[in-house]
Amino acid sequence: MTDAPRDTTANETGPASRPYSPGLEGVVAGETALGYVDGERGRLLYRGYRIGDLVAHGSYPAVANLLWTGDWIPDHHLPTAAIPRAVMTVLRALPPDAKPMDALRTAVSAWGAAQSLAWPPTVEQARALTAFSPSALAAIARLRSGKEPIDPDPSLDLVAGFLYQLTGSVPDAATARALDAYFIVGAEHGFNASTFTARIITSTRSDIASAVTGAIGTMKGPLHGGAPLEVVDQLSRVGSADHAEAWVRDAIDRGERLMGFGHRVYRAYDPRAAALRTVAEGMEHKPDWLKLATEVEDVVLRVLAEKHPDRPLKTNVEFYAAPVLMGVGLSPDLFPATFSLARHAGWTAHVLEQAATNRLIRPDVNYVGPPERDLPT
Amino acid sequence: MTDAPRDTTANETGPASRPYSPGLEGVVAGETALGYVDGERGRLLYRGYRIGDLVAHGSYPAVANLLWTGDWIPDHHLPTAAIPRAVMTVLRALPPDAKPMDALRTAVSAWGAAQSLAWPPTVEQARALTAFSPSALAAIARLRSGKEPIDPDPSLDLVAGFLYQLTGSVPDAATARALDAYFIVGAEHGFNASTFTARIITSTRSDIASAVTGAIGTMKGPLHGGAPLEVVDQLSRVGSADHAEAWVRDAIDRGERLMGFGHRVYRAYDPRAAALRTVAEGMEHKPDWLKLATEVEDVVLRVLAEKHPDRPLKTNVEFYAAPVLMGVGLSPDLFPATFSLARHAGWTAHVLEQAATNRLIRPDVNYVGPPERDLPT
Repeated sequence: MTDAPRDTTANETGPASRPYSPGLEGVVAGETALGYVDGERGRLLYRGYRIGDLVAHGSYPAVANLLWTGDWIPDHHLPTAAIPRAVMTVLRALPPDAKPMDALRTAVSAWGAAQSLAWPPTVEQARALTAFSPSALAAIARLRSGKEPIDPDPSLDLVAGFLYQLTGSVPDAATARALDAYFIVGAEHGFNASTFTARIITSTRSDIASAVTGAIGTMKGPLHGGAPLEVVDQLSRVGSADHAEAWVRDAIDRGERLMGFGHRVYRAYDPRAAALRTVAEGMEHKPDWLKLATEVEDVVLRVLAEKHPDRPLKTNVEFYAAPVLMGVGLSPDLFPATFSLARHAGWTAHVLEQAATNRLIRPDVNYVGPPERDLPT
Repeated sequence: MTDAPRDTTANETGPASRPYSPGLEGVVAGETALGYVDGERGRLLYRGYRIGDLVAHGSYPAVANLLWTGDWIPDHHLPTAAIPRAVMTVLRALPPDAKPMDALRTAVSAWGAAQSLAWPPTVEQARALTAFSPSALAAIARLRSGKEPIDPDPSLDLVAGFLYQLTGSVPDAATARALDAYFIVGAEHGFNASTFTARIITSTRSDIASAVTGAIGTMKGPLHGGAPLEVVDQLSRVGSADHAEAWVRDAIDRGERLMGFGHRVYRAYDPRAAALRTVAEGMEHKPDWLKLATEVEDVVLRVLAEKHPDRPLKTNVEFYAAPVLMGVGLSPDLFPATFSLARHAGWTAHVLEQAATNRLIRPDVNYVGPPERDLPT
């Protein structure tokens, strides 16, 4: 029971209250060489490489390997992994109406229970877990629809393999490419809440499955995992590019919030949205949802610039994430879990980085409860 | 994908490095009215009440209810809860050699997946989860030994019920009392790593099962959950009170570390150890392990005071935790999971407190990786 927090300042009259920053806003909690988020200039770098370049020239397995090892191997191959028998029994036991994030969290926890994960965490563990979870989510999605899970096809790369196990068909190149690009831009983003959770769990010398289980539970919260359904709803309401201009002007006049524009960090164009748009534009046969999204974006940015020339509002990654996920045939309630699959690379890379220079993460707290008192008699 | 961390300071030449405290040491991360840890004066208060008074006059259900609600109801009753059918199937699927912490983490995750846990978390959810986990751990322990799980007995209180479901026999009063006291002193201890994890997960508006699943994974790490086996080993080597003095003098002469003495936070006597010793002393028929522990403690403190009068080294809670757990028949590999059961009250109380005044917890990070660069060609 060596869990004691550091001493809270005490004096004769009781605890002293010390200044603090709610939500740790502006408090630096550590160092990382993995991701660099530059909101001012609209840059996102993984180990120094621009996100746009990584999407243009790499694949998710190559990016994951870069995050884990620091090495850039553009044709690095990583297929999805088989689901251990015990874990498949666990997935079959879950109720069909379980939320996909709850089911994925349970799958990763059971995966960790089904094997011996020694300290320290390794690249092999990171690779195995990142390759397991897409198979698990595909099985979860099929089982709840009464379908049988599909075994991995080791000839397919991770993202195409996930779609194959989800649908039973090998995806066309454009579909796989669109989702792979989404996985790359979702792979890493500094010390967000789920990544910080994974690092705290690792800091006690717990294992990589415990860390990712905690991270999935953190991302489940709508303040983190987001509400991509709102962008899908918006595109559904717009319906077609022809109606975009009228719909957008009407929405702005009504004071309605446009989903997918503006970002808390990125004052310039969100580099992840830019990378996804570039992929969409380069496709010969793009999925309808993606086509609609690029057309609607053009209209929205034109109308916004006309209405508020002083307040530039740029597209954020959610605007493209939703149509990409919809376009590859994912139902909206699978979006947060699919985002979690993409973030596995970053979470596990942070686990490795934390373990390499480990120090227990344990902040202080101000006690603001009643002073010492006797129990009522 | 609304997970952006706050902007990391950027300038023309790259990221600036800002000062930070490794492990958030000395950084105040929030406020709590639940527990107050006063290392200087050797005090631990739950909502203002001294831990010794709570152990003397209360029970674990009363203390849990105090943490959740602020109300002191000394005869508050809380039996263990039945295991949902889906969760029992999950537990049966886990390999018999799964670590108990991995199995308990998976059980809590599956429990969350098997029901609809709405935001915000409630006292009822806290109560239900705290009552579920002892049944789950008892079932895990029985299943791995090839025994059938035992249904809860609603007439028993939580700690006696846990022992009944573990062993198949209603425990005698002294055994139940000793473990209940351990549960009370383990229930809450400020912002340690697992509690902080539970609060971060809650801060995204995720659910109470996600928070406790993450907390269990955090406590699994030996830097947090500890190594109580070492105290058990030490008592085994001492063997009997007659040999204690010779063994202790010999150990000190050899420069061996005495387990269960000294504490990072408590400079005075650890108030949790004091409370557990008082319970042990008040027992008419104390378990042999507990009797040995009190006798060995007396010898160690006398010899230490004689050898190092200038360096007072006091007993810590681990010295009593281990013999209590051993004394009630728990095998050492169940100790961390049993500690987790006790901490459920604190974790879930922190979840409620965090949700009541919620703000996303998301610190900053210094980027220390390579500057912006092109991909190798």
